[in-house]
Formats: sequence, C-alpha cells, structure tokens
Amino acid sequence: MVQATDLPRNEIGITAALGVLKQQFGEKFQTGNSIREQHGHTTTWLKNQIPDAVIFPQNTGEVAEIVKVCATHKVPVIGYGTGTSLEGHVNAPAGGICVDMTEMNEILAVHSEDLDCVVQPGVTREQLNVYLRDQGLFFPIDPGANASLGGMAATRASGTNAVRYGTMKDNVLALEVVTPQGEVIRTASRAKKSSAGYDLTGLMVGSEGTLGLITEITLKLQGIPEAMSSARVSFDSIGAACEAVMMTIQCGIPVARIELLDTLSVQAVNAYSNLTLPEAPLLLLEFHGSENSVAEQAELFGGIAEEFGGTGFEWTTSAEDRNKLWQARHDAYWASCALRPDAKGISTDVCVPISRLAECVNAAQERLDALGFIAPIVGHVGDGNFHTLPLIDMDNPEEVAKADEFVGWLNDLAISMGGTCTGEHGIGQGKRPYLVKELGGAVDMMVAIKSAVDPDNIMNPGKIIPED
Amino acid sequence: MVQATDLPRNEIGITAALGVLKQQFGEKFQTGNSIREQHGHTTTWLKNQIPDAVIFPQNTGEVAEIVKVCATHKVPVIGYGTGTSLEGHVNAPAGGICVDMTEMNEILAVHSEDLDCVVQPGVTREQLNVYLRDQGLFFPIDPGANASLGGMAATRASGTNAVRYGTMKDNVLALEVVTPQGEVIRTASRAKKSSAGYDLTGLMVGSEGTLGLITEITLKLQGIPEAMSSARVSFDSIGAACEAVMMTIQCGIPVARIELLDTLSVQAVNAYSNLTLPEAPLLLLEFHGSENSVAEQAELFGGIAEEFGGTGFEWTTSAEDRNKLWQARHDAYWASCALRPDAKGISTDVCVPISRLAECVNAAQERLDALGFIAPIVGHVGDGNFHTLPLIDMDNPEEVAKADEFVGWLNDLAISMGGTCTGEHGIGQGKRPYLVKELGGAVDMMVAIKSAVDPDNIMNPGKIIPED
Repeated sequence: MVQATDLPRNEIGITAALGVLKQQFGEKFQTGNSIREQHGHTTTWLKNQIPDAVIFPQNTGEVAEIVKVCATHKVPVIGYGTGTSLEGHVNAPAGGICVDMTEMNEILAVHSEDLDCVVQPGVTREQLNVYLRDQGLFFPIDPGANASLGGMAATRASGTNAVRYGTMKDNVLALEVVTPQGEVIRTASRAKKSSAGYDLTGLMVGSEGTLGLITEITLKLQGIPEAMSSARVSFDSIGAACEAVMMTIQCGIPVARIELLDTLSVQAVNAYSNLTLPEAPLLLLEFHGSENSVAEQAELFGGIAEEFGGTGFEWTTSAEDRNKLWQARHDAYWASCALRPDAKGISTDVCVPISRLAECVNAAQERLDALGFIAPIVGHVGDGNFHTLPLIDMDNPEEVAKADEFVGWLNDLAISMGGTCTGEHGIGQGKRPYLVKELGGAVDMMVAIKSAVDPDNIMNPGKIIPED
Repeated sequence: MVQATDLPRNEIGITAALGVLKQQFGEKFQTGNSIREQHGHTTTWLKNQIPDAVIFPQNTGEVAEIVKVCATHKVPVIGYGTGTSLEGHVNAPAGGICVDMTEMNEILAVHSEDLDCVVQPGVTREQLNVYLRDQGLFFPIDPGANASLGGMAATRASGTNAVRYGTMKDNVLALEVVTPQGEVIRTASRAKKSSAGYDLTGLMVGSEGTLGLITEITLKLQGIPEAMSSARVSFDSIGAACEAVMMTIQCGIPVARIELLDTLSVQAVNAYSNLTLPEAPLLLLEFHGSENSVAEQAELFGGIAEEFGGTGFEWTTSAEDRNKLWQARHDAYWASCALRPDAKGISTDVCVPISRLAECVNAAQERLDALGFIAPIVGHVGDGNFHTLPLIDMDNPEEVAKADEFVGWLNDLAISMGGTCTGEHGIGQGKRPYLVKELGGAVDMMVAIKSAVDPDNIMNPGKIIPED
C-alpha cells in the first residue's frame, strides 16, 4: 500500500519556529487540534498527517516572513488553499507550518483590454467568475470543485474545459512566488508570450508547493462567448462513444467540453440530481462561439454521433437546461460516493493518447467488475483523461489492498500506452512510485532542481520527489 | 555595446576531446575553417565566434556519445539547427563542439488519431508540413524562416500563428533530451495533458541548449481547417490599427493571424515582392474554420476595422491570393534589408500587454525617426509583439553605438510597460543584461537550476545566464 509515510521530525527546529511565529503572528497563528486536523484533511483517501500550526497570512510580506523563520529553523512549510486535493498534497508527514491562503483572497487587478487579471492565491474560481461576469469575461479552467486558484496553479489543475482552453499550464501568465529562502520573485512579465530565459512560471505551475509558495497569479481571461450550446447523446458502448469523440476532435470541431459518463455514473447522477438520463454511456458537450457557430458545431457533432450509433441526441442553447446538466456533471463525484455511503472513493486519474482511450477505459471497467467494486467512471475524454472511483470500505484491509493493486495496475497500463498516471490531480504522496515508472531518468533532473532550489527540503516535503 | 564577449577556453580539455571525437566520428567530424565559420554565423548582428569542430550525428546515441566525451573533458557543446537565430545562440565564445542536427531529420511517427507526431530535431517546419499535407494535418507554428523544429523548441519560437495556436511552449508535448551528463531522458508521456511532476518539457523549451540537447520532439498537430480566408485593411495610423486589433481579440474572433506592417514595411514589401499595397499602416489577417465561420469572422472583422477608420478592406478565400500575401509578409525581413543593402538589420523583439502596444510602437517609431534610422516595423500584434529593424552600417561605430542605445531604450520601455525584452527570439548573448532588468531575483533561480543541471557549464556557455 502506497501510504502516507511519516518522515523524521526536526523537533528542535519546530519548537523554535513555533515560538517565533506565535510571537510574530498572534491571532493569525493557530495550534488548536481541530484546526490542525482540518488542515491535514482533504478529500484524499490517504491518512491524515497534521501540521504543528496553521497561519493565516494577509499578504505576501507575511508569507515571506513565515518562510524566512521556517528556513532559519529548517521547518516544513505547507501551502493550503481549499483542501480539495485528492493526493495528500496538504499532509504534513514531517510536521511543520501550514500556510492557509484563505485570507489572501483579493482580486488585485482586471485588465480587460489585455484579457488578463491578477489575483491572490486564496481567490476561488467561482469568486473570480462572479466578479468578472459584468465585464463580459471569464476564466475557463473548471476542475469541478470550487478550488482556490493558488491550489489549481500548484497542482496544474484542469477539468471539463481543458479540451478547448487548456490547463492551468496554459492559462497562468506569471506568478509571484516566495522562494524557500523567503525571497519574493516574479516569474514573468504580463506579456502574452515571452522567450526570456527559463520558463519559471511553467516550472512552478504543477510543482505542488515544493519549490516555493505562490502569492500572486496573473491569469489569462476569455471573453464570454456570444452563444453557448450544450448537447447530450447516449451510446451502446464506451468504445462507440470514444470513437465519436476522436472523430469530433479530428474534424476540428472546437468543442469547449466533451465529457463521458459510464452507465453507473449516469445511474448515480440520475438518483442524486433527480434526472432521467438514459442508462447507457453518455457524452455531454458544450460549444462556445457565435450563434451561428454553436448551432453549426452542435449539428456537425450530431451527425458524427449518429455515425457511431449515438441515440437520443439533443442540443439546447437554454441557459437553464445547460446549467442543470453541468451541475449534475459537477456533482458526479458526490453522486458516486452516495452509491456506497460509508465507503471512501479512491479516484484514479490516468490520461492516455486518445487512440488508446476506449481500450483503456474498457480494460479498467472489466477489471473493476472482476474485482466486484462499485466504481463509476467519468472522463474528460477530449483529452484522453478519465477517472474511475472505486468505493472502498477503508476498514476492510483486503478490500483496500485490492483497490491499491487496481490503482497500480491502471497506472501501469496507462504508462504502457504512452500515457500518464495523472492527468490533473498531481503526484502528491501516493503517486510518487508511478512518477518514476513513467519518467525514469527524468526524475533525477527533478531531484536536482528540487535540491538546488530548496536545499533543506522545507517546501512541502514528501510530495512529488520520490523517497530515496 | 553588449557584444559577444570571448570566454576563457579550456585548451587542454578541447585538445583531448577533439582527439577522441575525431577517432569516434571519422567523416562526421569536421574542423575545416569554412565549415566552422558557417556554424558560428547566423542572421545575428553579433560577431562570429567559431567552434573548434562540427559534428553531424545520425542518432540520439551518437549525440549522447559526443556529450559524454565533452563532459569528461569539460568542453562546451553547442546545438545547431538551421542557423536562423537572431541572438547569437550558436556562437562559441569559449570554443567547443558544435552539434549540427541537420542529418537527424527523420519524421519518426505521425499519430493522426491523436493529432501528434514525433520528429528528430533537424526536421524543418516546411518539411513537416509537406509530409503532413496528405493526411489533412498541419503544424501551426510559423516563425517565417524555415527553421528546424529542434531550434524552434530550444528558443521557444512562435511567429504569425501564435495568436491562435500559441508558441512552441504550447505545442511541444514531450521531448527526448541528452543531459549534460550524456544521459538520455524523456520529459513527458504522449498524453495531451499531465500533472506528473515538474514540467521539464516546459523547462527545456526555451532553454536555448543550456540544459541539454533536444534529440526528439513530440508535437501537437492540427487538422487542416475546412476553409481559410485572409483579409487586409489599411489605417491612417498605427494607433488606429492597434485599436482595431484589441477590439478584434476582445470580441473573441478566433483570428489565426493578425499582422501589422508600418508604412515603411509596406513600401519595402511592395518593392521586393512587386505588390501595390496602399502605402499606409496595414493589417494582414487570416481566419481558419468552416466555410461559414471564416466568412463570418472576416465580415465581423471588417465591421470592426471600419469603426476604427480602416480603408480598402478586402478578404478572399482564394489560396493563390492568400499565399501571395503571406509570402510577401514572410519576405518582409529580406525586403526590409534590401532598403539599405550593405547594412545589417538589428531586429528588436519586445512584447507588451496589448493595451500598451500602440503607445510602444509609436514611441519606437518616433525615436527611430529622431535617430535618422531606416527601420521598418512589423508586428505579431495579436500578442503585443513587434519587431523594429534598424538597418545599420556596422563599420560606422557611431551608428552602431546609437543602435545599441536604441535597443536598450526600447527593451527598458517594454519592461516598464509590463512587457518583455523578447517575445520570441530568445535571450542568447545580447539580451542577458535585459533579462536581469526584466526578472530581477527570478534570474537567481535560473542560475541555481543551470548550476544543478549542468554544474560544469558545458551546455552552450555564455547564453541566457548573465555573466557574474
């Protein structure tokens, strides 16, 4: 079982840092048990490893102060956004200080002419989109959960819109970062593109707090499209649905979303959201553009779906119908968990070249059936990324061991197909051995970079970088 | 004058490495004067610094062998593609071995279902697009020159299509790299997206050969659009043209290209390509999509152009007319050089937030006029990136000094506007001081990464990283 191993604690350093930080931060410094437990706890299935204290900084200067104290005493620093990580990112295996960004939640600037904005890391994506709406702008990345933008940047998040708008990697223009030495740096200018040296923005995005703490984010924005339409269509098999997806992408239809739900997910969503979708593999789509263009896209797609045996094709530009459908999709995680209320969902996150998607999803489903698991499957299939969610009784060691074996088997399968063990959740604690399987010698370069940037390993230790 | 300073040579190491490599590579190992001079020579205005030998490897294994020998003897290794760099990237200020990738020019795989391909670094973009045409696919990044894809990745190149398709940063999925230790690593899988650890692909793209040699590139491809249209329109002033560009982007019209030529560039292009474009600031555009969509886009844009005083708006879907117009645009560099045949063009490359573009271009033009320079201006204005090309008599020290001062002034201006000193050409030798002005303390992190990955500084020394 790849579990969250405890790491050696620097007790002397921790005691010293706690003393200094308590002095410096007063009320913003918290050590109560329940608050510490909350900050180790996420939606992950990994065990909770709590920090020694939680601090709520108000600005970059305070973050830098915290990191400087921790650097002096060689104490771990763990960034925290909304706690929606699925891979143990906020666990504190060696103790240390959790830096909760909740109170750094200001939208600092919106440059509507340049289609960008500058936000603090605690701003959530819903908060940003509500703020932008009046200006006719939106930020497209949508991982489902109302995550913080700092956390989304740190884990290179994506979600349902990535097929059209890319991931956080493609939508962060620049970052302000507090380095492991407590210095404040800016990784790039606000220019739309640049060839100015190493892409530190890209290096920080997805570094999971192991190279520094993100204190400000410059994001690309999009104009709210003139029109949106959404569509749904059912298929006899996952294979047929995937074929339709491939053809849609190859034809260059600029779908904004193209999501797969397997039969079990559809059943879960119907029950949870009180819908009556046909109980068969389902594709949900969204199209963005001019009124003509979204109609044309929906109809082109309808034709492709029919070719691959799609049935019950419907499309609409009604905002109400659209929102209902996408709310149901976003609730799929909770709808799935409700299929076995006392169990824990273990979300897998493989992403494969789209030509191998049907084969990979089918193999996963067969194996889950053979194991007797209740395990709905949803997928951001335009990117080749899908999640299975085996619902596991964590008090049953045999079941847990079988689930763990399944996760490993699926990661290996995806890697063997030229894919990755994580499309969007990150490596965190649990996937470190698979990172090595996936990238081999390249991980040595990651280790070298980590050691150079954070020689005392104080930034989020036990994440990404494999144990020796 | 920021010139190409010579760096100390490791004579003993170079002699030893030359002996071993000559033995190992036979005919592929060349030390003739003219071939060495050719390999230091590029379109740059910086002085030529020639390598001690040029090797033409056939495969990754041979590249790894070269690097291992150079690592053993601490001898510089400089990658070479087609020599179209404008910033002295292939100069050898401390001597060493130039690795010419010309013979590693195979297209290794095209995965049409996944819209990606795998190529060797010596494949040029035109070669790739000719190869892909029958499959209905294309690779969109187009820097004008028929550059090698390895060189384009190494410098984070972009060009006319970036406004729609992004830069090399957005279009490289994975790389095979020979590290400074001579190990072969793969930076990512073929999955469309991934959160698997640090983004080494992104780190290598734009690292200008200072962290390793790229030996294989996995690229995203696009389906050839069903239809393309191109358009042109003239304006009274650069400001009006820029306003029209801003409005076009804000309205979400998915332009594939939107290029500005100032009056002098139009005159140069008319003379060079035998055209009769109106002698006024000009926007050239291209639209990609369905037949309906490209017509709609062209007409929407026409309306916007009119609002800002655009005249002579014309659009066409004729491939012949389109190609003629874009060939003229691509020849603008040579057309400009022809305005003063014995002079050298010093291309600037600033990129600013689009809201500051008109101000920046106007200021540059005024200053160039005041200096009495012949200096056409073209711009990838959808991204806020533009090039001025002062044509300088390199034998006139006073003129050279004035040009150098202008370059510095313009870089400083762009940086003060929240922009960058290089949108797409890279830092190379000449822009190192501006990198520090632009990113300050972030450059320390670049230095730390460089030292960790290449502790002996053998990979393309004297580029990107500032002198102590």
